[in-house]
Amino acid sequence: MSLLDRIRYCQRRDVARFRRFVVSGLPVGWIAHRLADRLRGFPRVFAVSDDAVRTVDALASFDDRSRAVGDIILRLREDGWFPGWRNEAFAVSTSFHAPPLLQIERGAARAFGIRSYCVQLNGIVGRDGELHTWIGRRSLSKPLGPGKLDQIVGGGVSIGAGLGETLVKECAEEASIPAALARLARPVGAVAYMTQDGDFCDDQVLFNYDLVLPPSFAPTNTDGEVDGFELWPLARLKSVLADTDDFLFDVALSLIDFLIRHGIVEPSEPDYIDIAQGLWSAPAEDVA
Amino acid sequence: MSLLDRIRYCQRRDVARFRRFVVSGLPVGWIAHRLADRLRGFPRVFAVSDDAVRTVDALASFDDRSRAVGDIILRLREDGWFPGWRNEAFAVSTSFHAPPLLQIERGAARAFGIRSYCVQLNGIVGRDGELHTWIGRRSLSKPLGPGKLDQIVGGGVSIGAGLGETLVKECAEEASIPAALARLARPVGAVAYMTQDGDFCDDQVLFNYDLVLPPSFAPTNTDGEVDGFELWPLARLKSVLADTDDFLFDVALSLIDFLIRHGIVEPSEPDYIDIAQGLWSAPAEDVA
Repeated sequence: MSLLDRIRYCQRRDVARFRRFVVSGLPVGWIAHRLADRLRGFPRVFAVSDDAVRTVDALASFDDRSRAVGDIILRLREDGWFPGWRNEAFAVSTSFHAPPLLQIERGAARAFGIRSYCVQLNGIVGRDGELHTWIGRRSLSKPLGPGKLDQIVGGGVSIGAGLGETLVKECAEEASIPAALARLARPVGAVAYMTQDGDFCDDQVLFNYDLVLPPSFAPTNTDGEVDGFELWPLARLKSVLADTDDFLFDVALSLIDFLIRHGIVEPSEPDYIDIAQGLWSAPAEDVA
Repeated sequence: MSLLDRIRYCQRRDVARFRRFVVSGLPVGWIAHRLADRLRGFPRVFAVSDDAVRTVDALASFDDRSRAVGDIILRLREDGWFPGWRNEAFAVSTSFHAPPLLQIERGAARAFGIRSYCVQLNGIVGRDGELHTWIGRRSLSKPLGPGKLDQIVGGGVSIGAGLGETLVKECAEEASIPAALARLARPVGAVAYMTQDGDFCDDQVLFNYDLVLPPSFAPTNTDGEVDGFELWPLARLKSVLADTDDFLFDVALSLIDFLIRHGIVEPSEPDYIDIAQGLWSAPAEDVA
């Protein structure tokens, strides 16, 4: 196993299993044929063809589309289509800064294959002249990646929430980082991936942040999403990332970027260029 | 003008003007049809077809290929095919860590469209609580980008030279940075681009390094390649990059990566995701 394996895992493609999800004429997601066939049962909301699922033109506004699609998601939820219900809405749009075309429940984001956004924080501590970072273990009750290793803080960006706001909120809930400290986090870049896994398509951008924490600070979880934290030297982080799949699969991307930026993964690494390039999967438009 | 314009400039494509350069059955470059037609005159070295220029199978070793191709490059040089002669050899290979298939003169690298590699250094100084970086102005005698703005140090990686070795050498020549100080530079990632410009194809990977310099240190040039240095706050760097094309076009990529990593270009930037993704152009294989 290798760091490049972590990248490749985030680039799994099974395009023949999906068709585009199109809203207002704009491609915004990927829907498995199995779900597309089910959506044929709702012709007042979806126009389903062999190559795409389109919201019908009669749904002309954000509110109309959100309500109509949301009603169907609620109905299909009872049939088990959307595991991991969150009661949290994600924006559906053509890009991060574009106005949303509709909102959908987070638990349905993977089934519709929409691009979602999250903030990922590296909690950094200098100790004995060596950089360390706080590693969390995800609670066994998490719908995604129970028991997997994770960064100190990370979270999806709900519709209407800013990145800084999301980061401060997650810092408080996941690690008891005070707001004044959380606001010192520095944006350091973004990574992205798209992976097709069974009937789901994960298309995510991870906005990465670094925060230097006081050596006296120890994170504690308040929302039950983290089982515990450990402070790791970066060399350990590198070897666990390279040799195991103990980390949540997409968190690995954010952490590899972290190790590259801090010079722990170096150009002497045989896969260095493929790794650096792989932190940006081909965008969805290039896949089909 | 915008930061994204700097990225797009490095992604110019004119694929119809080029065919592949193939060595030992492996695609390693892009050759303009105009040069390909000229290479038909050397059938003992090149097998030229409509889609590719191949070195002939009889040239079975690194030495044979390097000598035969080198002889032709020397002949064509007299006809003006390779402006910017350097008397410096670049490795030609399928990847950075793969054994080279041949070596060719640096001045011919763009005409054969081979992937080349360079080291780029950000010389960082903290002053008045704000990060600054040393900016150089390229000598008017440089073959590429005379008079353009540049990082404190940057240089191509010759065949057989390591990245660290190249960086230390360039630090001494371009900015009088002592070796002991240069060795403290930290690798922080890489960016890449491929751009087709007239009959030339630039396919480069830039290995980026950050080096924190003592406030008392002032760079001085020894090799005549830099006309002078100025210490800039990063906000100024951002605005000059966004509003002008005063910087050497590919150095802009390395500097935008620098500004992202240090939180000066932030996610609130409307083009943030396109910029971050654009620091890796589509690899050459995906173009045709």
